[in-house]
Amino acid sequence: MNFFVGKKFEETCIFTLQDVIKFAKLSGDVNPIHLNPEFAKNTPFKKTIVHGFLYASKISKIIANSLPGPGSIYLFQDLNFLNPVFHDEEIIICVEIIEIKVEKNIFTLKTTILKKDGLLALSGKAVIKLI
Amino acid sequence: MNFFVGKKFEETCIFTLQDVIKFAKLSGDVNPIHLNPEFAKNTPFKKTIVHGFLYASKISKIIANSLPGPGSIYLFQDLNFLNPVFHDEEIIICVEIIEIKVEKNIFTLKTTILKKDGLLALSGKAVIKLI
Repeated sequence: MNFFVGKKFEETCIFTLQDVIKFAKLSGDVNPIHLNPEFAKNTPFKKTIVHGFLYASKISKIIANSLPGPGSIYLFQDLNFLNPVFHDEEIIICVEIIEIKVEKNIFTLKTTILKKDGLLALSGKAVIKLI
Repeated sequence: MNFFVGKKFEETCIFTLQDVIKFAKLSGDVNPIHLNPEFAKNTPFKKTIVHGFLYASKISKIIANSLPGPGSIYLFQDLNFLNPVFHDEEIIICVEIIEIKVEKNIFTLKTTILKKDGLLALSGKAVIKLI
């Protein structure tokens, strides 16, 4: 596969209440801000929001399936949660190669999640080894 | 609630193949290293491993449910993936307060995941705002 700095992959994604319920069961994170509209009304966000680890997991999907793809092993990821992602809101997940250490098969990737209103939901960096 | 630097919460957890399959469906991360024992045999880990974002999500569970608890909003998390977590392997997830900015209700937490063999699976830091 042809890897180069600047190569990117992006895809859109929407999380429904059903997805959020499934993730709450799997993770055990039952924060009412994700599940209870009445509770969420009284928060700064006003509406229920998607778990950060759920939408951030779409970064690992792109890394595992597409860029760099199968054989990817996570070494590092940081996640700056900048703005909330609401249920049924379309987001764009973007992964871009910013450094390649050829001799070690290690890739540094810029990882961002953008909201349709132009705000960033998440910024961060991943470091991946391809085995 | 009585918060102080050094306060910690920990719990154990095990992920089965069924959990890994559910998370693969939810995230779309179908990396064969998580799902295919034949593929995994030919990797340095020799066995199928749990998705990093799946076991790391147990950190958000503790934060949301216990420390600091309901009303927690993620600002930041970094994840250093140090050693793999295998299917059916018991791990210990630990969250500890290392800094409190009282005037802003912001907590910095040391977040670690320990394997039963004494190796760290994950180290990192979370920054949380309590609303």
